Amino acid sequence: MVDVAVVGAGQTRYGNHPLGLKGMWAEAARDAFNSIDNDFDPVMIDEAFIGSIAFGGSQLGNTAALLTEHSGMDGVAVRRVENACASSGFAFRDAWMAIKSGQADVVVAGGIEKMNDLTPERKRYWLGVSGDTEWERLAGLTFPGTYALMARRYFHEFESSHDDLVHVSVKNHHHGSLNPMAHIQKEVSFEKASSGFMVADPLTLYDCCPTSDGASCIVLAADHVAKKLTDTPVWVRGSGAASDRLALHDRPSITQLQATQVAGKRALGMAGIGAEDVDLAEVHDCFTIAEVFATEDLGFAKRGEGGKFAREGLGRLNQGSTTINASGGLKSKGHPLGSTGTGQVVEVFKQLRGEVTSSRQVRGAEVGLTHNVGGSGATCAVHVFGRDQR
Amino acid sequence: MVDVAVVGAGQTRYGNHPLGLKGMWAEAARDAFNSIDNDFDPVMIDEAFIGSIAFGGSQLGNTAALLTEHSGMDGVAVRRVENACASSGFAFRDAWMAIKSGQADVVVAGGIEKMNDLTPERKRYWLGVSGDTEWERLAGLTFPGTYALMARRYFHEFESSHDDLVHVSVKNHHHGSLNPMAHIQKEVSFEKASSGFMVADPLTLYDCCPTSDGASCIVLAADHVAKKLTDTPVWVRGSGAASDRLALHDRPSITQLQATQVAGKRALGMAGIGAEDVDLAEVHDCFTIAEVFATEDLGFAKRGEGGKFAREGLGRLNQGSTTINASGGLKSKGHPLGSTGTGQVVEVFKQLRGEVTSSRQVRGAEVGLTHNVGGSGATCAVHVFGRDQR
Repeated sequence: MVDVAVVGAGQTRYGNHPLGLKGMWAEAARDAFNSIDNDFDPVMIDEAFIGSIAFGGSQLGNTAALLTEHSGMDGVAVRRVENACASSGFAFRDAWMAIKSGQADVVVAGGIEKMNDLTPERKRYWLGVSGDTEWERLAGLTFPGTYALMARRYFHEFESSHDDLVHVSVKNHHHGSLNPMAHIQKEVSFEKASSGFMVADPLTLYDCCPTSDGASCIVLAADHVAKKLTDTPVWVRGSGAASDRLALHDRPSITQLQATQVAGKRALGMAGIGAEDVDLAEVHDCFTIAEVFATEDLGFAKRGEGGKFAREGLGRLNQGSTTINASGGLKSKGHPLGSTGTGQVVEVFKQLRGEVTSSRQVRGAEVGLTHNVGGSGATCAVHVFGRDQR
Repeated sequence: MVDVAVVGAGQTRYGNHPLGLKGMWAEAARDAFNSIDNDFDPVMIDEAFIGSIAFGGSQLGNTAALLTEHSGMDGVAVRRVENACASSGFAFRDAWMAIKSGQADVVVAGGIEKMNDLTPERKRYWLGVSGDTEWERLAGLTFPGTYALMARRYFHEFESSHDDLVHVSVKNHHHGSLNPMAHIQKEVSFEKASSGFMVADPLTLYDCCPTSDGASCIVLAADHVAKKLTDTPVWVRGSGAASDRLALHDRPSITQLQATQVAGKRALGMAGIGAEDVDLAEVHDCFTIAEVFATEDLGFAKRGEGGKFAREGLGRLNQGSTTINASGGLKSKGHPLGSTGTGQVVEVFKQLRGEVTSSRQVRGAEVGLTHNVGGSGATCAVHVFGRDQR
């Protein structure tokens, strides 16, 4: 069976982007193509998968084909993949399978979201439609409320408090301050993050990711092609995906994400490694409590000790065995829904190749992991990457 | 490389369905599972791909996970695939690749759309968002107008007139009258279809597909599993997909669909057969003129002779070498956008197994083809099926 590598990766800066969908995508694609070391031509691309919720609805149908025609990929077999905020994590998985299938040698996986050109009311609608419509959204529960319920329950079940979430926020803002592509590039103090504007008790503004525009684009290739395109491919060592009930009341526990546990176990199992072997992980911290869950569900911390993990600063850059969200994460790098999954891959690709700002470089990074969640845990895709092929 | 077969296929009746998304999907999935000859359990499903535009937007994010949790597929790695009206044609392709990749043995591909619970104004919006937003939709051009422009140009370039489209309509209504799952199960006379209510000159009501609710579900399996599940698998012999510019003004010709030509050539080439070997083809006749294009672009008729092909009744049930739209096609069976592609596979599966009403059976059907188009030709997926494995 063929091995698959990432040979190029690019993205726009996250934030309030001046361009629309087509321009943003073209920028990310160009950045990805330019990152490929040796001669590359977009006509080499056999297949493409683009993750997006098509936020705002200006181009809800055939979004993917519209984007490829604006980036030199005319005629390519392309489709949009949608799984709420995990859209491009799944787009990446499907791109990987397309190469594994022997039907394609060079495949693009990407993601995009344009969130900042809507009124606040329309934004609320578009952010709500990824939760369970019947039981949650129409009853008034949107994601800050969902994650607030989960956080409250976590504090009840385990020795943890909002202070632990503040530690997550401070860490991710610190990492983001070192990332020139991040939406929010500034430090926040523990004091400031402790006393933020309340959004949904106990979550304050400093617990919630911003509303970002952004696009990201990854070029994957089969081993024999990858080695021609670059001397430093980043290998896809494992992929896992799973789903769960959308509505919280249907789950046996709301202080862990079962989809993360299953997807993580599959991806690490395929790579033949344990969580302790991962040098850096980009995890889905749409809210700070979600990072606490991710560190436990992926195995970086024991069950119930994710809060302690944050408190002790174990995910901080080059502090523990695994740096968590070196990019700044969704909290600080930003969260342009459909772009987030492949945006995480951009960070891991550049970290493993030693191409990030030196102040943000994870020392001796050999193995990276990406963790992308849809909604409040209904879908999840995890990928493991390595500098070594196997 | 593993061969892939369809082992089960089911669908709801198309039309104005009393149930919502979850109920419709559960009905189609149950129908598909029940169609599998030997012991089958949904826990065998490794991966699922569901095509939908999420029409109406009640569940725009994580739609796919919501559906699988309501059909005994809890926890499965699932995603929504969106390519406008070609959504489930691509979902099927991605399911096929997932098995080819060796990562999955049993995979579900399906599609769904609930169209009839919106106001006419909202329907217009949701039908418009699959065309090019910037150049067409916002200028007021919706699909009847797009295809009307293409029809006018076709009549200008070739010896053809609206009468040829009437022949397509009469044929497809005839086939649909024999299909108990069709939206419109009645014959129309040539006279009646000639004098229909004008929608977009030259297209009348009898040239346009209806607005349908519907869901369809296909179970695919790797060869070694397929043979355990059934004695009569239907083999996927070829798959092809392509994209094209969304806006008509960007294409060199508007009387042919380049994406169909490329996808068809790839699928037939992979199967190692010619169009003349296909016993039945389910083609994407969202408007009658689209069937004329499809018969030419797929090679059933020569360029410019699709009108003549229709006039001479060559696509009529058991009249020529290839029966076109034995199900009634989108015109008469109905067109629940996201469901159409896998709905076509349901018809081919049942026809090749000799399981349709005897009056609709294509005699000696050994090879079938499905052709699913997104928008006015921006995306296209073609599949070839055979009773024989190779």
